[in-house]
Amino acid sequence: MKKIVVLGGDGFCGWPTALHLSQKGHDVVIIDNLSRRNIDNELEAYSLTPIRPMSARLQAWRERTGRNIAFHNFDVAKEYDKLLQFFCNYQPDAVVHFAEQRAAPYSMKSSRQKRYTVDNNLNATNNVLCAIVESELDIHLVHLGTMGVYGYGTAGMKIPEGYLNVQVITEEGRAIEKEILHPADPGSVYHMTKTQDQLFFYYYNKNDGIRITDLHQGIVWGTQTEDTRQDERLINRFDYDGDYGTVLNRFLMQAAVGYPLTVHGTGGQTRAFIHIQDTVRCIELAIENPPDRSDRVQILNQMTETHRIRDLAAKIAQLTGAQIEYQTNPRKEAAENELHVENACFLEMGLQPTTLSEGLMCEVTEIAEKYVDRCDKSKIPCTSTWYKKK
Amino acid sequence: MKKIVVLGGDGFCGWPTALHLSQKGHDVVIIDNLSRRNIDNELEAYSLTPIRPMSARLQAWRERTGRNIAFHNFDVAKEYDKLLQFFCNYQPDAVVHFAEQRAAPYSMKSSRQKRYTVDNNLNATNNVLCAIVESELDIHLVHLGTMGVYGYGTAGMKIPEGYLNVQVITEEGRAIEKEILHPADPGSVYHMTKTQDQLFFYYYNKNDGIRITDLHQGIVWGTQTEDTRQDERLINRFDYDGDYGTVLNRFLMQAAVGYPLTVHGTGGQTRAFIHIQDTVRCIELAIENPPDRSDRVQILNQMTETHRIRDLAAKIAQLTGAQIEYQTNPRKEAAENELHVENACFLEMGLQPTTLSEGLMCEVTEIAEKYVDRCDKSKIPCTSTWYKKK
Repeated sequence: MKKIVVLGGDGFCGWPTALHLSQKGHDVVIIDNLSRRNIDNELEAYSLTPIRPMSARLQAWRERTGRNIAFHNFDVAKEYDKLLQFFCNYQPDAVVHFAEQRAAPYSMKSSRQKRYTVDNNLNATNNVLCAIVESELDIHLVHLGTMGVYGYGTAGMKIPEGYLNVQVITEEGRAIEKEILHPADPGSVYHMTKTQDQLFFYYYNKNDGIRITDLHQGIVWGTQTEDTRQDERLINRFDYDGDYGTVLNRFLMQAAVGYPLTVHGTGGQTRAFIHIQDTVRCIELAIENPPDRSDRVQILNQMTETHRIRDLAAKIAQLTGAQIEYQTNPRKEAAENELHVENACFLEMGLQPTTLSEGLMCEVTEIAEKYVDRCDKSKIPCTSTWYKKK
Repeated sequence: MKKIVVLGGDGFCGWPTALHLSQKGHDVVIIDNLSRRNIDNELEAYSLTPIRPMSARLQAWRERTGRNIAFHNFDVAKEYDKLLQFFCNYQPDAVVHFAEQRAAPYSMKSSRQKRYTVDNNLNATNNVLCAIVESELDIHLVHLGTMGVYGYGTAGMKIPEGYLNVQVITEEGRAIEKEILHPADPGSVYHMTKTQDQLFFYYYNKNDGIRITDLHQGIVWGTQTEDTRQDERLINRFDYDGDYGTVLNRFLMQAAVGYPLTVHGTGGQTRAFIHIQDTVRCIELAIENPPDRSDRVQILNQMTETHRIRDLAAKIAQLTGAQIEYQTNPRKEAAENELHVENACFLEMGLQPTTLSEGLMCEVTEIAEKYVDRCDKSKIPCTSTWYKKK
């Protein structure tokens, strides 16, 4: 049994992670300022699934399992003293850090959201690291990063797990072998903050010997896990709006309401995916396998499959009979790309991936069709554009 | 004549830069929240030279040259709306960005200063970039970075100007040539923020086509420029305290007050240097040579000489008769390193370096000895330590 803090434990990944770790017998505490629910209010776009307030969620969990999860509502990016005090009192073994604004389109809406994303994400990460150093506790930090830090223009190379071996030729013609952090190529302000997080981790690991695992996650699909499925009051978020909805969930929703599947550009973008059930399992595996204090930052690619967007659309069209509509791409990105990703570490640790072919129909019936009446179709279009037309 | 904004124009580099650009006939506006003077109050450590309040400085400049420099007191990191409004009204051609906390030892004092440095530096840079994008003006951003982004463990390789050519071998044994941003290896929280700034620049340049020049500056020495020397009311800062005093200025001060020259570790650290007169000239050259809108970020190494710290101490001991004292190094860094730096770009643009051998004696007599009575010896020791002893 470990003492584990889940920062951002009310969110889409944080909530099922907290339940999974609690189910496995760990003592779990959630810290969250409910920012994701507040952004729902700002965008007037709500989870398709009827998520309950935190106290009702935790009450349901107690009733179903007899397990307690404590909850503290404060802002990790702004309330440093509370965070430090909490670490010193609770003395956690591990901190799972989801306390960041996580939608790329939201981070591009206007300067307000760009600035919020930078201010929140960077100060949150720095505060967590500062508090770990100041507490003098040996806390393992597990952070949710993104596959997007690598960029997608890797010339057919398999994306390694965080580090890249390169050769540099000196002026005198001598060849030097170096292992470097994979060069960053962020595609949005959100992704940029995750590349900046990598530098926080590199530095605090080097200077203070903090144990850190950074998980470069693919696009999450699916809604429920074994735990959230136990009681409707435990249900997880499902976002389908143009800002927070990820591509696969948006397609499912569009199919359910009879809206054409909106593919940006040619749909030739290839992306990495992972089911939410595998996300929570990966976090558990990461916590079970901390790096040593003398190790560098442990970087793991948290994804199980890659798919081309137009192939996903075709698959869902076939399942549901939906139409496909090709639209102008609001993002600045390559029209077509290959993507090969190394994910040997999690497979060696024992991850058994949920495949798209198993889980997809269940999403259609359990979520998209079941809650179709809660859908606000006006929220489906993507309205955030990545850059000014010049 | 260009319209130029100097953010942080009250500071050690910002003030002489503002005067130099004004002297060259540009229209100059200073924006500064006086944070550097406020940190003087916090540390109870003041400039050895008697710097005047901003209004007295600007009055003296008007009297001496007939030129006006406007001044606005606000916080670039916190007051975004004012910044944007100002850009839209004034429509600058170039913005010189010095509005960052610039002392590595200060950034390591405690979590408070670490957090301030991260919050201030990163939000300032992001706000400036956001405001340039939102203003829709074609503004050239010139930013003061640091040689410290490269790290000092470069295995005898000459440090290039920002970018590095590497070869990556794919799984199938194919060699791919790539040009990457030089891998970052920051040695303090301050340096870390400058490596994070590079990612802001990379991203906003790629996404929004912003023209950016990032100057990787060596350690600045010297105090006065041709402009600040014209009137004692124009005098520039000279910091000798353990946090803000840079190594060479500290040695000069120590010699002047009969304190031994404090060398950390073996003094085998090799660093890059530049005189403040050359700093202001480099900024002028950078403004005269903006990259095209379609160009990547222009990175220039802004330094003129490299020296080993113990050699500097020996040189000053010889000039002044001071003793040398070797102390435990509070920083986590290599005891000895070589350093070779490419600086061809500025030399090609016409920079004619001030060498250490010319300028050093003048610093001793014009500054350190002249204002010796203003020195508070208790501020000379370095009290910030880089990491907890374990």
